[in-house]
Amino acid sequence: MIKRVAHIAVAVRSVDEASRFFEQVLGLRCERTEVVETEKAKVAFFPLGETEIELVEGMEKGNPLERFLEKRGEGIHHICLEVANLDETMGQLREAGVPLLDETPRPGADDTRVAFIHPKGAYGILIELVEVPSFR
Amino acid sequence: MIKRVAHIAVAVRSVDEASRFFEQVLGLRCERTEVVETEKAKVAFFPLGETEIELVEGMEKGNPLERFLEKRGEGIHHICLEVANLDETMGQLREAGVPLLDETPRPGADDTRVAFIHPKGAYGILIELVEVPSFR
Repeated sequence: MIKRVAHIAVAVRSVDEASRFFEQVLGLRCERTEVVETEKAKVAFFPLGETEIELVEGMEKGNPLERFLEKRGEGIHHICLEVANLDETMGQLREAGVPLLDETPRPGADDTRVAFIHPKGAYGILIELVEVPSFR
Repeated sequence: MIKRVAHIAVAVRSVDEASRFFEQVLGLRCERTEVVETEKAKVAFFPLGETEIELVEGMEKGNPLERFLEKRGEGIHHICLEVANLDETMGQLREAGVPLLDETPRPGADDTRVAFIHPKGAYGILIELVEVPSFR
């Protein structure tokens, strides 16, 4: 079961520059910034109701984010949907023949578990699935 | 002030076909479908928490949606943000030099008023702004 849109991720060339637009023009508040070493990415989160806008900047050449920017330019990169049970959801996707980018869940931030659906199985949308531990 | 993400719109070749994925695989429920004559588009809405996934299919050749599909393929087309006061938000955007696709608000579905920000002013994201009448 899908519970909510956890975040909408936007690929940008500069998180610092784009943050000014989201803060000063749209009036959102940057809750936190992080450097995700495993992804070589700099991220910033802007809560918006029950979801968040996530800005993502690739930190080295050849990074998948850099390739996305070269091909498509800045814009929405993926959406993340929170599911109640990630293993169950992945099983249902596999059964329906939907291609996954992750064969098994991998650790996300804050003790979450995440997995990506291949965009060719989801009408061109790169979908991240996240399961948030129930003790939170 | 931005209140929430009102919807995430996905451009698809066939709303009927894509609906099956969102209903049968992701387990969302199609709340309503509409034909928007002014836009020559067929749309379907799937509530998800406080937001909605909107599937959009262009209904005639040369339609902007058709051009989007030719250029980018299926995928996220725009996001819609609900604002408390559309005139005020548009004034702030103009003051900040952000280019708008609509100079003045235009009528949306269900007595709403809407306006689009040009993606070149919003880091490649096509953003629709919507003001929902306060009596709802």
